[in-house]
Amino acid sequence: MTVLKPHPDRALPADPAVRALAREILAATRDLPLLCMHGHVEASLLADDLPFDDPARLFVTPDHYLTRMLISQGVPMEALGIPGRDGGWVETDPRAIWRRFCEHWHVFRGTPTRFWLEYELLEVLGVSGLPSAKTADPLYDEIAARLAEPGFRPRALFERFGIEVLATTDPAISPLAEHARIRDDAWPGVVIPTFRPDSLLRLDAPGWREEVAALGEMTGVDTGSYAGFLDALRARRAAFAKAGALATDHGHATADTTPLPEAEAARLYADALAGRPYGADAFAGHMLHVMAGMSAEDGLVMQLHPGVLRDHDPAVRAAYGPDRGFDIPIAAEFTRSLRPLLESYGRHPGLTLVVYTVDETTYSRELAPLAGVYPALRLGAPWWYLDTPDGLRRYREAVTDTAGFYNTTGFVDDTRAFLSIPARHDLARRADAGHLARLVAEHRLGLDEAIETAVDLAYTLPKRTFTRSRPAGGQ
Amino acid sequence: MTVLKPHPDRALPADPAVRALAREILAATRDLPLLCMHGHVEASLLADDLPFDDPARLFVTPDHYLTRMLISQGVPMEALGIPGRDGGWVETDPRAIWRRFCEHWHVFRGTPTRFWLEYELLEVLGVSGLPSAKTADPLYDEIAARLAEPGFRPRALFERFGIEVLATTDPAISPLAEHARIRDDAWPGVVIPTFRPDSLLRLDAPGWREEVAALGEMTGVDTGSYAGFLDALRARRAAFAKAGALATDHGHATADTTPLPEAEAARLYADALAGRPYGADAFAGHMLHVMAGMSAEDGLVMQLHPGVLRDHDPAVRAAYGPDRGFDIPIAAEFTRSLRPLLESYGRHPGLTLVVYTVDETTYSRELAPLAGVYPALRLGAPWWYLDTPDGLRRYREAVTDTAGFYNTTGFVDDTRAFLSIPARHDLARRADAGHLARLVAEHRLGLDEAIETAVDLAYTLPKRTFTRSRPAGGQ
Amino acid sequence: MTVLKPHPDRALPADPAVRALAREILAATRDLPLLCMHGHVEASLLADDLPFDDPARLFVTPDHYLTRMLISQGVPMEALGIPGRDGGWVETDPRAIWRRFCEHWHVFRGTPTRFWLEYELLEVLGVSGLPSAKTADPLYDEIAARLAEPGFRPRALFERFGIEVLATTDPAISPLAEHARIRDDAWPGVVIPTFRPDSLLRLDAPGWREEVAALGEMTGVDTGSYAGFLDALRARRAAFAKAGALATDHGHATADTTPLPEAEAARLYADALAGRPYGADAFAGHMLHVMAGMSAEDGLVMQLHPGVLRDHDPAVRAAYGPDRGFDIPIAAEFTRSLRPLLESYGRHPGLTLVVYTVDETTYSRELAPLAGVYPALRLGAPWWYLDTPDGLRRYREAVTDTAGFYNTTGFVDDTRAFLSIPARHDLARRADAGHLARLVAEHRLGLDEAIETAVDLAYTLPKRTFTRSRPAGGQ
Repeated sequence: MTVLKPHPDRALPADPAVRALAREILAATRDLPLLCMHGHVEASLLADDLPFDDPARLFVTPDHYLTRMLISQGVPMEALGIPGRDGGWVETDPRAIWRRFCEHWHVFRGTPTRFWLEYELLEVLGVSGLPSAKTADPLYDEIAARLAEPGFRPRALFERFGIEVLATTDPAISPLAEHARIRDDAWPGVVIPTFRPDSLLRLDAPGWREEVAALGEMTGVDTGSYAGFLDALRARRAAFAKAGALATDHGHATADTTPLPEAEAARLYADALAGRPYGADAFAGHMLHVMAGMSAEDGLVMQLHPGVLRDHDPAVRAAYGPDRGFDIPIAAEFTRSLRPLLESYGRHPGLTLVVYTVDETTYSRELAPLAGVYPALRLGAPWWYLDTPDGLRRYREAVTDTAGFYNTTGFVDDTRAFLSIPARHDLARRADAGHLARLVAEHRLGLDEAIETAVDLAYTLPKRTFTRSRPAGGQ
Repeated sequence: MTVLKPHPDRALPADPAVRALAREILAATRDLPLLCMHGHVEASLLADDLPFDDPARLFVTPDHYLTRMLISQGVPMEALGIPGRDGGWVETDPRAIWRRFCEHWHVFRGTPTRFWLEYELLEVLGVSGLPSAKTADPLYDEIAARLAEPGFRPRALFERFGIEVLATTDPAISPLAEHARIRDDAWPGVVIPTFRPDSLLRLDAPGWREEVAALGEMTGVDTGSYAGFLDALRARRAAFAKAGALATDHGHATADTTPLPEAEAARLYADALAGRPYGADAFAGHMLHVMAGMSAEDGLVMQLHPGVLRDHDPAVRAAYGPDRGFDIPIAAEFTRSLRPLLESYGRHPGLTLVVYTVDETTYSRELAPLAGVYPALRLGAPWWYLDTPDGLRRYREAVTDTAGFYNTTGFVDDTRAFLSIPARHDLARRADAGHLARLVAEHRLGLDEAIETAVDLAYTLPKRTFTRSRPAGGQ
Repeated sequence: MTVLKPHPDRALPADPAVRALAREILAATRDLPLLCMHGHVEASLLADDLPFDDPARLFVTPDHYLTRMLISQGVPMEALGIPGRDGGWVETDPRAIWRRFCEHWHVFRGTPTRFWLEYELLEVLGVSGLPSAKTADPLYDEIAARLAEPGFRPRALFERFGIEVLATTDPAISPLAEHARIRDDAWPGVVIPTFRPDSLLRLDAPGWREEVAALGEMTGVDTGSYAGFLDALRARRAAFAKAGALATDHGHATADTTPLPEAEAARLYADALAGRPYGADAFAGHMLHVMAGMSAEDGLVMQLHPGVLRDHDPAVRAAYGPDRGFDIPIAAEFTRSLRPLLESYGRHPGLTLVVYTVDETTYSRELAPLAGVYPALRLGAPWWYLDTPDGLRRYREAVTDTAGFYNTTGFVDDTRAFLSIPARHDLARRADAGHLARLVAEHRLGLDEAIETAVDLAYTLPKRTFTRSRPAGGQ
């Protein structure tokens, strides 16, 4: 069993001369704060500031990156503490769950999960070794002891991580009570919501009518008509903005943004209210166009995450719920899909649209060419299955030629695992330092420029991208 | 003319430190036996154990990798010994064919054909130089002399290569007589068949009705009905299993696996029997679903090779027959296509499904995410046009992040050129050693772990994948 | 501000041993003439041989690579000297335009524009520094002074660059008067036209009927019928060939080459003449098939550039005209699209078809397999957004396995920026030297072979590809 204390040079290029440059570039980003402009940590974690649960419930059961790998190797969900809806047996002993994970440590070789967990265990928690069948029990005890210390509560870690701002993701009808509790508190940490209206924009989403009714009630706007629906959405966007939100987030199956004639949209809406949710795909595409228009008005940065087929195995969803690792990418298309939105708002000074993809083929073919000309468009960081050492490298190699560095957002961590936040920023900074170092070594960039660019990617660009009013004519 | 005696460091990374690691990792796989779990060598070769033909008929005429390159440079098929069906002139002098090939040696620069041939000539046959216009004749004589020696007969080479098991590919109605001859022989070599029912599953395949009739006769089952057809297929699968088969193989145009209602499938079958082969694509997709069900029952590993448009130029097929180098890939799709099969059997403990692709874009987008969660799915080795030094590297870089190493099959050689088998395994082990060495050099993996993984990729994983009953919950 | 005098090792691999090999390989190409077999420089530039305009009109305003990047950062078209059709304000002070560009120099980091401009400024013009807010004015003056010198006129540069032949791109109905002026002149430079009939082949192109009428008038052939139309096209092809043309060029939305029945094509043609341009896509695909047939007859090399959606934002086209950076790639398909053409002419000794793509996913999946077997097909150099240091590298890595080097065209510069021609050839030679050096370092190729191949890629292959009659059976 190798104990691999995260090496200072981890994930940097192997060539000695390039590595030396990469070290120097990386050093310039070491003390920058973390901007966490998009993620899925719950606000309650920081509102409550309770100690974390045991190692299994912290690291294993809720992390779909990790459970999916164990499932792929034949471990049943139940053995990882995920209860089936049939009410059958489920492992309740966290130590047993932890052991199962530790016994499978080798299957994570070469994966980002392994990379992040090393950092979390050794750097964040400071434990003495890595998982294995033999170390499972002592490691469990060591972690459990750490989690009981006050220095390992969420707020203390938030501060230790150097998080300047943490954006959560919240349903449009969330009352944002946890965010209010944090604001009203003496604690100075900045935790802001992100407006995510997906389920409201899909006429055929389960419970859509109930959610529309709740939206109406919450805003005091009559959502019985399409016009009222739009007004209510505007009201919620304003409420989010007031609570500090800088952005919206949209997770659609495709990037289609074709607007419908107003009357047609109103008719589909009315039909859905009447229990006939026809044309849900067309309405969803239409609403992306509408959302872009609202962003151009209210300045909330619009984020789009298309191209994932959710719940590939519906039986898993039915038995164990969503987010169990069964979301699988499909081929994405942006050139034609984004065209209607970009025709309308692509050169509008009020809009910033950030697009993420899990289909690498669109980097050089569609996204870099689009982001390299439309002032409203910025390319998001490599998403999900691509947020990896090699994925981050391939992203820079594929998009920089045509989009440069300054039409990208810089790093966006996009995680629900709080402890992995610094690990992910660390990895992204290493990957960018490695890429920039290669440009310097190949005499394509000066070292001073590379250092400045590294700082921009880690800090300046996310900050500049996620502001509510983009300066016209600025970079 | 460079004579490039295969260098001990060939195809290893150039960086000296990474290369040193790669050498050490590679060394651990040097003496492992070869598991040839999928290929297209004829069983008769080993049943007969006759000396190989002359150099032209061994290396040039039957190898579509090689002839396609010469054809692309304007050399006519006939000049390579491939007769046209018009009965016109064809080169019959093997020395003239060999000369033509040797004169074009430079057009193979940078290709895997060049890489394999170097190994075959210099390592396997031990000749003194490489092809060129000048060396053609002496080389011909040297090779011909080798082929006459007893140590260069198929069985002797099989043993020298260290082949532990060699799987052939056989039509469902093959009597497997050659395999029986080998088994009944004193020779200890293990040569097993693989069940390939493609032509039976395509209602519009030429001669389909005759083949169905032969299937009925062979099994003693009435194939006049769809139910009988399925029973007859089951009988042949059982016969293959009895003859040692561990797997089936399916070469479909797409990965579609949508099941039809039983009655609809029966109707299409009956129509086809009556000479109206409608719905052949739908029936083929349906039958993949059926085959998965049978695999879940009888434990034969199911292999799927989709995404190739066969006989791109039908005039070539008409004049010179199939497998002349005119099979061209098309864009592949797996997320939606495999969904019906995986919904039914993706978590079934009895199924192992191995998927191969010639469309690299599906690695990170679809196949790694699917294999990284479904316990039944394993990712096959890079196939055909991708079984190359750079193709093997890109495969590991693209799939490991999400699927790890342990959801891949390890190497599968998939060749019809018997002499190329050790060359292909050698190259794959080098590519994996190079990839693993980079992970070690970048402090993403310990050297002990890399060595263990290299052995698993070369031996343990193919062995574990191609077993008839997968242990539930195992890795 | 780094002043980065183009480094002798720029864009070569960083590893010292690989770099040393790359230097040696590159050296062999240093003094080779430039073959510019495809590009968009205007013949008038060399017919007139006037001094270049000021720095802004030379480098900024007409270069859509450069303006698109500034536009993406929020700079208005007008501020770059591009007038809107509304007749509103536009910057007319070239110094102000130049300053704006210089202030944004950092946004070009990592892009090929940066790479080429460094070469153009420092190597071609020999100025003393690079753009920045501070250097903008002195740099402007320095450049302006250079442009006034006789040694910096187009013909002098043509000679200094070592251009052996420069192909322009010309509408089918171009009278080729500028080419004639050059030929009739004492100046020995070779400037040849390329036949580009795109607008004539699209029945729904604006002004199509007028162009068809002009074609008839120019050729003295009655274009009132489809047969006459074809005869007139043949006449123009012959006129181009007489003026030195070696090739045609076709920029279609897709690679579709499906022929129509003769009567159907004639009917669509007649309808369009009568003001009903139906079936324009089908007719365009049909005409590619017809053009291939004419190429097989007259020997003009056929070039195909598909897969770009032109004028993604139609409002930009309406306000500022075409070629403003708003052309965006779409997913390309070749296997099925080229099949009809290749079935008819793919093994015809008279045809050379060169295919370019901006969709990298087709390299290993479709184009290399097709070019690796059809003698008529050659793979063009990486096009447009892919003509970059990393794009050129990925191209060789993806296509060489299956197509080798000798089914590619070697480098094609494809630029409208005259000063960038030597920079682009220089970069391509560096990228190929780097790729070949890696093969040598990995013991996959001998150094002597690599050097020979580098020369072939830079000179022999473009020369051999762009000849009017391809020797049968040759390489």
